[in-house]
Amino acid sequence: MKRNVLIIGAGGVAQVVAHKCAQNNDILGDLHIASRTKSKCDAILQTVADKAAMKQDGVFKSHSVDAMDSAAVAALIRQTGAQIVINVGTAFVNMTVLDACIETGAAYIDTAIHEDPEKICETPPWYGNYEWKKRDLCAEKGVTAILGAGFDPGVVNAFARYAIDTYMDDVTSIDIVDINAGSHGKYFATNFDPEINFREFTGTVYYWEDQKWKETSMFASGREWDLPVVGKQKAYQSGHDEVHSLAANYPKADVRFWMGFGDHYINVFTVLQNLGLLSEQPVTTAEGLEVVPLKVVKACLPDPSSLAPDYTGKTCIGDLVKGTRDGAPVEVFVYNVADHAEAYAEVGSQGISYTAGVPPVAAAMLVATGEWDAKAMKNVEELDPKPFFTLLDKMGLPTRVEVNGTDTAWNA
Amino acid sequence: MKRNVLIIGAGGVAQVVAHKCAQNNDILGDLHIASRTKSKCDAILQTVADKAAMKQDGVFKSHSVDAMDSAAVAALIRQTGAQIVINVGTAFVNMTVLDACIETGAAYIDTAIHEDPEKICETPPWYGNYEWKKRDLCAEKGVTAILGAGFDPGVVNAFARYAIDTYMDDVTSIDIVDINAGSHGKYFATNFDPEINFREFTGTVYYWEDQKWKETSMFASGREWDLPVVGKQKAYQSGHDEVHSLAANYPKADVRFWMGFGDHYINVFTVLQNLGLLSEQPVTTAEGLEVVPLKVVKACLPDPSSLAPDYTGKTCIGDLVKGTRDGAPVEVFVYNVADHAEAYAEVGSQGISYTAGVPPVAAAMLVATGEWDAKAMKNVEELDPKPFFTLLDKMGLPTRVEVNGTDTAWNA
Repeated sequence: MKRNVLIIGAGGVAQVVAHKCAQNNDILGDLHIASRTKSKCDAILQTVADKAAMKQDGVFKSHSVDAMDSAAVAALIRQTGAQIVINVGTAFVNMTVLDACIETGAAYIDTAIHEDPEKICETPPWYGNYEWKKRDLCAEKGVTAILGAGFDPGVVNAFARYAIDTYMDDVTSIDIVDINAGSHGKYFATNFDPEINFREFTGTVYYWEDQKWKETSMFASGREWDLPVVGKQKAYQSGHDEVHSLAANYPKADVRFWMGFGDHYINVFTVLQNLGLLSEQPVTTAEGLEVVPLKVVKACLPDPSSLAPDYTGKTCIGDLVKGTRDGAPVEVFVYNVADHAEAYAEVGSQGISYTAGVPPVAAAMLVATGEWDAKAMKNVEELDPKPFFTLLDKMGLPTRVEVNGTDTAWNA
Repeated sequence: MKRNVLIIGAGGVAQVVAHKCAQNNDILGDLHIASRTKSKCDAILQTVADKAAMKQDGVFKSHSVDAMDSAAVAALIRQTGAQIVINVGTAFVNMTVLDACIETGAAYIDTAIHEDPEKICETPPWYGNYEWKKRDLCAEKGVTAILGAGFDPGVVNAFARYAIDTYMDDVTSIDIVDINAGSHGKYFATNFDPEINFREFTGTVYYWEDQKWKETSMFASGREWDLPVVGKQKAYQSGHDEVHSLAANYPKADVRFWMGFGDHYINVFTVLQNLGLLSEQPVTTAEGLEVVPLKVVKACLPDPSSLAPDYTGKTCIGDLVKGTRDGAPVEVFVYNVADHAEAYAEVGSQGISYTAGVPPVAAAMLVATGEWDAKAMKNVEELDPKPFFTLLDKMGLPTRVEVNGTDTAWNA
């Protein structure tokens, strides 16, 4: 049993996390949110107040912290009495926040793999480069650390575990498909911070097949999927965090990740990349100013959080898992469909932030109740998926399963 | 009779001007080249030496000058004894260089309309906003100023004058078509300074029809042309300097300018413009750095002068002039075809710089011999085109005419 939550970060996902924590503060206790810029936290707290999101009277305070400074994070954990830290800051702060949790004994939850700002798409396994190096220390100290507990990675890891446990003796492949069939009405925009968003696509795409790492490049490997609700959609193999942990936990299965992209997105991306405008290496203008082109592109694009009010349509994210039972082939699609406008109505965010922000709060609630308080470092597929799905059903992200042409709720 | 030339500027066009002046220094006398960065002038002089371009022994010296400082330019004119100034610096320095010529009595020649860095595509007539305001002063002081003496504007103005004088009683339309059917082998590049190049296409497109100014937008009005040598090519109405002077001199004719663009160019341009990356208004990055996006795009694109060695293919630039003679309709296409690789072999520049740089030297030679020493401000269509064509024929840019399906040299 753990109580009191400290949220690190104040972006679009943090806003969803804040609302969902507020809606469940009877279980989670005191709430705190901290980022480098306190005013961003205050803006989020204002939306929480506007929606009267707090389930019961309680604490929800904002703080300023430099999350790259582990000692400062540890001090804030002690000051707030937080026993659970939900880290939805930039991917660059994972290790310093994790260290602060190990130092103080607080549970750690994040939604994305650690990144070094100087490196993009490192050689797999990425988790092995940073987080997993702390696995023994977490076990030794009894610190709970749940890695990648957003939607993808996160819920999709639980989808894979559930499909395998429920329907198969052996798994042969896990294909994760992420389709955003929504429309933000802008010429072009990214749904997350463009710096992080584009980084996912500028390096080599790694996937796990025939029990080894294989490589392709972005947009080189695409296929059309026909999915529930969103219909036929083109998706392309991309590198993604969960490929690395699922490949480690299910090494005999092929593990691939597919991200949906429209032709327009690919065209804009291709132009920008070919011109060198997605580069993180500075260029020098004729006037002698040193500038990182990607940072200028980011400044020109719409702020992802500004997209929410006009976002319409749905997302479909799921796992096509193949395997055998009693020697016969089995094929299961476990998935969720979320709606942009419903997300905005509830928490003031678009559907992409919503799907990323709700799951870590569910994970925090399972740590609070003890069901996921593993006292060790875990990726989501290493934890029981059922209580997770049960909470997500109630929190706005219901899990559905399609087996042999029959589509039902996971627990129907 | 005037002698001794001062070239202002040290870009790709200036290099062609330098070579052509050197090849004709028996007529032009002492040669000087000046820009803000003297080392750029020295690099050009080195290529002149490498090609042994000087027709006879003579002076060719480099200088440093801030061409925005009219007094400094006047001092340099006096110091060098130049009686002819060829201004191929940025379009921002026209008025300061022209003022220096008026002050010293030197003849002034340029290749592009004056631009205010703060304004793009001003309301026509552009010449009326700046250069033509000095027309009376030039006449009063007997100063020769030849405006827009590159290819377009420049030779195409002479094409129009020639077609009308030779074949028509009345002119009804002048359509100028500029096709670059060459290939630089890069993913994307501009043939001139990207800042100037894109500025041409980001504003309203003005054209003269039915004796009034009309407006369209870039890439909104396109048609396929079938031209000599380069064949079928798509071109789009663009704003261009010569439309303004030709409309003033031939107010009863429709005057339009058509620039050839491939689908790939249009796609890249459209993406950049829609994202705001062609903006001259600064944006602020997340880190607080103020940057003009267009300057970053420029820094990422290939330096236009770097394209020359691998440039292949041809340009075709011409005027389709329609009118009547003895009441019957007449249609004449006056044009030139230039070759990128030949230009590089001769002067170390690509064909676009070549077509822009050769004509002002021909104009300077006509000022030197007295034929174009008008002692007044003139646009090229106000001068006799025949000696101009005669020189251009010898200098690498022969004029051809297509009338009633028959294609010949202009003086055949």
